[in-house]
Amino acid sequence: MSGRLFVVGLGPGDAALRTAEAEAALSQATDLVGYAPYLARVATGPGIVRHGSDNRVELDRARLALDLASRGRVVAVISGGDPGVFAMASAVFEAVEHGDPAWRALEISIVPGISAMMAVAARVGAPLGGDFCAISLSDNLKPWPVVLGRLRAAAGAGFVIALYNPISSARPWQLGAAFEALRGILPATSLVLFATAVTRPEERIRIVALGDADPALADMRTLVMIGCAGTRSIARADGGAWIYTARSVPAS
Amino acid sequence: MSGRLFVVGLGPGDAALRTAEAEAALSQATDLVGYAPYLARVATGPGIVRHGSDNRVELDRARLALDLASRGRVVAVISGGDPGVFAMASAVFEAVEHGDPAWRALEISIVPGISAMMAVAARVGAPLGGDFCAISLSDNLKPWPVVLGRLRAAAGAGFVIALYNPISSARPWQLGAAFEALRGILPATSLVLFATAVTRPEERIRIVALGDADPALADMRTLVMIGCAGTRSIARADGGAWIYTARSVPAS
Repeated sequence: MSGRLFVVGLGPGDAALRTAEAEAALSQATDLVGYAPYLARVATGPGIVRHGSDNRVELDRARLALDLASRGRVVAVISGGDPGVFAMASAVFEAVEHGDPAWRALEISIVPGISAMMAVAARVGAPLGGDFCAISLSDNLKPWPVVLGRLRAAAGAGFVIALYNPISSARPWQLGAAFEALRGILPATSLVLFATAVTRPEERIRIVALGDADPALADMRTLVMIGCAGTRSIARADGGAWIYTARSVPAS
Repeated sequence: MSGRLFVVGLGPGDAALRTAEAEAALSQATDLVGYAPYLARVATGPGIVRHGSDNRVELDRARLALDLASRGRVVAVISGGDPGVFAMASAVFEAVEHGDPAWRALEISIVPGISAMMAVAARVGAPLGGDFCAISLSDNLKPWPVVLGRLRAAAGAGFVIALYNPISSARPWQLGAAFEALRGILPATSLVLFATAVTRPEERIRIVALGDADPALADMRTLVMIGCAGTRSIARADGGAWIYTARSVPAS
């Protein structure tokens, strides 16, 4: 079989944040597979087949892409951000592991992209300047006590925390419960960023204290970041602020 | 003042992994500031001033860049990977916080890049498919007990762990001590990746079990990644393997 499968990260939204490698993969594809709003970001010529889907069928989407590639098509599975971070790459390999053995002969290329937490960090300064972690707040695929345990471990050890998938209509209470758990460990003055639709026209960034963090500031397009003891604000001359995390950690 | 400061992420090495925004920033710069091997990756025309330095003077480099920008130059501070991840962005804001108040009026733009852990993940499959963390193993700026505490917290809570700055001639024993600490928490069969100079001609990736992980497999160009319980290997038809982390975490 001569098909190929690319899993392509588009980055946070602004096309200027795509890599040349991502553009090259998209230009080769005969078929695009992905969540419809991501597909809409990709301009293509005639003859390119688009296979759009909704947001909660990652495995079906992965199997469709693998099947198309095994029939000789050049398939690009489209992810926002980086495909390896809470996106399509893991679903593709899960499908390979449990699927048609012929899929193990396919050439599969993961094309990295700028993940949301790096894009958010760049917009506000350098809040990921120390050790940090990324946690998906979705409990669709892992038990909520696991999520809580990771939040507590990360906060207790001094990591900056990036929360992906903070809230959705099907998961309305988890972000509030996460803040509640973090308030038991971190000072109420800890900085929290709500960064929505970063690098897109509707971008909105709010910086609040953990004590005042309101889950209503987040929606499905939001990345939430919680600072550590070394995360601080610098007043800019224009009245705004930069947020950064100091590289040094004092001896306690 | 009309100067500008860009802090630009070049990504892991291959120029195809730079973003269009990074290329645009580099094309505007009158002055490039950075660690000499990173500067060597940037092709520039005549008249561009290059300010190379060695690897351990981040704050001096940041102050030089801010001073040049405040004199009206358009300065690009060059980072490998993403500038916000164990790189120059945090040093620049540290210099701003403690430096000339006029620097707070500068236009400072952080231009994100593909960080090493995303590039490594893409090369091998999807090992960052679950929750993960990034830890710098350098104890130049934080006490070693803090590093150990974070390693233990992350391993105990089930994070995949990416280790930046794993080893250097000045820090020869820390990686071995880190493996030793992790062996007290994680199974000896846990997967460990040693990924050196990823996407560059001299790229070398080794996959071993934690019980066999030898610090001698790492050098200054290496990112080390330690899998969690859900990190597994899939045999490819060509005899190689993909590594990925399952999205699902079973109830314990």
